[in-house]
Amino acid sequence: MSSTTISVIGMTCGHCVTAVRTELSRLPGVTDVAIDLHAGSVSPVVITSATDLTPEVIAGAVDEAGYALAPGA
Amino acid sequence: MSSTTISVIGMTCGHCVTAVRTELSRLPGVTDVAIDLHAGSVSPVVITSATDLTPEVIAGAVDEAGYALAPGA
Repeated sequence: MSSTTISVIGMTCGHCVTAVRTELSRLPGVTDVAIDLHAGSVSPVVITSATDLTPEVIAGAVDEAGYALAPGA
Repeated sequence: MSSTTISVIGMTCGHCVTAVRTELSRLPGVTDVAIDLHAGSVSPVVITSATDLTPEVIAGAVDEAGYALAPGA
């Protein structure tokens, strides 16, 4: 089991949280996505997965949801 | 054809706009819903409908979407 924390920018409401959770949950092996919404700021997201996820795969899913990772995070 | 402008508070993103548009579009006779998102502030919404809509019906739909009309608007 692997746990990865990322920082997502641009989320402002519960709908945004749902969009990000949905995309990350679709990644292979992901068993949990915990999002601490800081509306309009940087929101920590903890992804729990059965196997390691590459930064590229995670960034792709966040982008697919319509958001971005914080620069340098 | 009737046009009604309301002021909705609490919308912060495109998902919020979609939620409000969806609920208002379900009201009988509604042919168009134009939303000018002012994120985190008061957003004007123009509802075009074949018949007049009561304030109660409109407020109910906005509430159903998870938002509220601006007080005194």
